[in-house]
Amino acid sequence: MSVYLVGAGPGDVDLLTLRAARILATADVVVHDRLVGDSVWDVVAPGALRVDVGKVPGASHRQEDINHLLAELDAHYDVVVRLKGGDPFVFGRGGEEALALSRLGIEVHVVAGVSSAFAAPLLAGIPVTHRGLARGVSVVTATTDDGTDFDFESLAQTSLTLVVLMGVARRGAIAEQLQRGGMSGTTPVAVVERAASASQRVVRARLEDLASLDVVAPAVIVIGAVAALELGLGELRSALVGAS
Amino acid sequence: MSVYLVGAGPGDVDLLTLRAARILATADVVVHDRLVGDSVWDVVAPGALRVDVGKVPGASHRQEDINHLLAELDAHYDVVVRLKGGDPFVFGRGGEEALALSRLGIEVHVVAGVSSAFAAPLLAGIPVTHRGLARGVSVVTATTDDGTDFDFESLAQTSLTLVVLMGVARRGAIAEQLQRGGMSGTTPVAVVERAASASQRVVRARLEDLASLDVVAPAVIVIGAVAALELGLGELRSALVGAS
Repeated sequence: MSVYLVGAGPGDVDLLTLRAARILATADVVVHDRLVGDSVWDVVAPGALRVDVGKVPGASHRQEDINHLLAELDAHYDVVVRLKGGDPFVFGRGGEEALALSRLGIEVHVVAGVSSAFAAPLLAGIPVTHRGLARGVSVVTATTDDGTDFDFESLAQTSLTLVVLMGVARRGAIAEQLQRGGMSGTTPVAVVERAASASQRVVRARLEDLASLDVVAPAVIVIGAVAALELGLGELRSALVGAS
Repeated sequence: MSVYLVGAGPGDVDLLTLRAARILATADVVVHDRLVGDSVWDVVAPGALRVDVGKVPGASHRQEDINHLLAELDAHYDVVVRLKGGDPFVFGRGGEEALALSRLGIEVHVVAGVSSAFAAPLLAGIPVTHRGLARGVSVVTATTDDGTDFDFESLAQTSLTLVVLMGVARRGAIAEQLQRGGMSGTTPVAVVERAASASQRVVRARLEDLASLDVVAPAVIVIGAVAALELGLGELRSALVGAS
């Protein structure tokens, strides 16, 4: 009867919204990808069918398959939830799914989630904006949905904090392009691996050292003066990881 | 014993995180600003003391007063919550408060919230990223925390969606600077007034018409190709406004 595109937040069940938790508790089917944290399943209706559609890296025919799957499920179940890591309308192709379903006459509800683009820096003790350091923030993925690489040179002179999602593999090119565009090699950088998980790790460096850092995906890269901040990291992590 | 900097989300209680709701239910004191939605109080402990510190527009001595107030309250209460609209580390000076409290030896916990920068567009049916339309998103305030105006010209050529908070009063200058920087006057624009409230209103236009639009604060301005999208607006709004 309805498909709910629901943001699962950065991974910890504690960062689900009240509305997301209530919808998940009544779900008949949950169609999810690998970016959804394990603990989120704690609030899903026990009898709900779970469908893992993986990460869908770049391949557009897979996106069509998912759209088709959601439409098919909608015909047979009352509450179909499409659960996405972070927020459904910040990367993750939620817009495409909403558009495809609407065109089929299916009622779509979209529920905002806490975006990893902001939550990962927060969990590392980094405010993405901070008076005197950053007047705003840009969020991009290193490789875009159409499979092409983003050119970072245009972002080198904006004076905004830069948050890069899915950028670990291209970190050398990112650093090179930003410096070519005029960003200083000494600009602080923080790489937040596995944000919001018990094994979260934060690696800090300078932009000129980003290429040679020993970091692994999944990770969020924060570039800009705020990346040098560490506002109560220990307490922040224990608050999130320990108390749920 | 502890101060919790908690994100209240865009306004509707339904978009609080589970963790925020749990902390608010045990709060002894809640220090809040005007950006916090009325319905959020539904989950606050009934006996909690409420302190309204207003919007704190630009004046740095007021921020110092708030820091001092939080420290003072922390000495007398177990659970002091500093509740902020949206996310505490996306504008709103959460970083400054965390830093000031940490320096005083006070244990600070920061709880992520759903940022209005992403949620307001979502509630208008606009995904801030969309394949073929926007490869990322920048978020800025029109007037920055230090009281000076942001120059939008540097963002005209980034190809990212631009989300402007607190920009209604300066909408003429924003449009002028972006066009001077090379952005087309026909670029779609959406102004989302009172997002996440029952009186939410969305006004769509072109960049060259932004200055003359009849819109009022508080509003979030979305600039870029995605602003022309409207993915199930009716359903989205009813899902948020009707179902809590």
